[in-house]
Amino acid sequence: MIDKNLQEEIEFIIELDKMKSTFRQTSLIDKSRRENDAEHSWHIAIMAMVLSEYADEDIDTSKVIKMVLVHDLVEIYAGDTFCYDEVGNSDKSERELKAADKIFGMLPVEKGNCLRKLWEEFEEMNTKESLFANSMDRLEPFLINYYTEGGTWKEHDISKEQVYKRSEPIKYTSNKLWEFTVDLIEDAFKKGYIPKLK
Amino acid sequence: MIDKNLQEEIEFIIELDKMKSTFRQTSLIDKSRRENDAEHSWHIAIMAMVLSEYADEDIDTSKVIKMVLVHDLVEIYAGDTFCYDEVGNSDKSERELKAADKIFGMLPVEKGNCLRKLWEEFEEMNTKESLFANSMDRLEPFLINYYTEGGTWKEHDISKEQVYKRSEPIKYTSNKLWEFTVDLIEDAFKKGYIPKLK
Repeated sequence: MIDKNLQEEIEFIIELDKMKSTFRQTSLIDKSRRENDAEHSWHIAIMAMVLSEYADEDIDTSKVIKMVLVHDLVEIYAGDTFCYDEVGNSDKSERELKAADKIFGMLPVEKGNCLRKLWEEFEEMNTKESLFANSMDRLEPFLINYYTEGGTWKEHDISKEQVYKRSEPIKYTSNKLWEFTVDLIEDAFKKGYIPKLK
Repeated sequence: MIDKNLQEEIEFIIELDKMKSTFRQTSLIDKSRRENDAEHSWHIAIMAMVLSEYADEDIDTSKVIKMVLVHDLVEIYAGDTFCYDEVGNSDKSERELKAADKIFGMLPVEKGNCLRKLWEEFEEMNTKESLFANSMDRLEPFLINYYTEGGTWKEHDISKEQVYKRSEPIKYTSNKLWEFTVDLIEDAFKKGYIPKLK
């Protein structure tokens, strides 16, 4: 007989399959379709592996990776809220708290709390690991927008000021990556990928 | 000016987007389409977080996670080889070695070697971490096949004997997960999800 804990864990794992159908605003680089939360989370986990050496302070890369793997789980129920959507963002916290109760509550208590804490740390952005994790979460769609010559920046008429604001976590975690980001924002603006100044 | 190493790393990160269009035989649980390597890799990374307590020996879970995040990168060029396809598997190693040179060779040498070693360890299956990583890689499509009432087992007329063989890494890494797997294989066979005995 399968025990209760393992049964709950398997049900949680099955539920996670829905991340593959939870779509984001950002497209794939080949523009064939929008990307989903599962592949986005994988992409930024491996980005953390590759780019963690550029963090200004020593960070626990393994913790960053675990954090980004779970950072979007609440979107299975709360949906993806486009970062530049002010209306959607006004009730985002409330929707995501309910979703967190539901998804992390599927697991045995201790394990559910452990994953939930990683998500909370990511959201609060008060530790060096969560700042770096958020930087990866901002840098990935940023790169996709640049390499698709505008992507959601053009689609939603986003300004350079907004892109700077959205990219800020990078500034507080890595001088080197921030320098790179600033260069790319300026270049994107010059090329018209970012359609307006303010 | 962006330095050479960071430039190579960004190009590598952009190339990884192709994992989102590298399709596997396994479908999503809702059967809407086949899953891709990026979302599969994410799924088994989080499975490793949730199930590592069941490893019979102490394992370095963070290492397992990093290993599964990179274990399918070679498929960007070598494609997914269906595990039960004998012809495809005869030249799989050769195709994947070439692909490994290409994908890991995009990175600065030290970083490329570091990721390549993780992939090699996964492939060789000689360490407890790589055995556990391979177990997750087998368990995920196994669960999907079960929860889609047959999936690729039915599609490719796979036998119970073949499913047992394919699931073997689980046996050597976790008594508890192996017990669970055996129960599910027997149940799947009884229900006709696995279409034949041998």
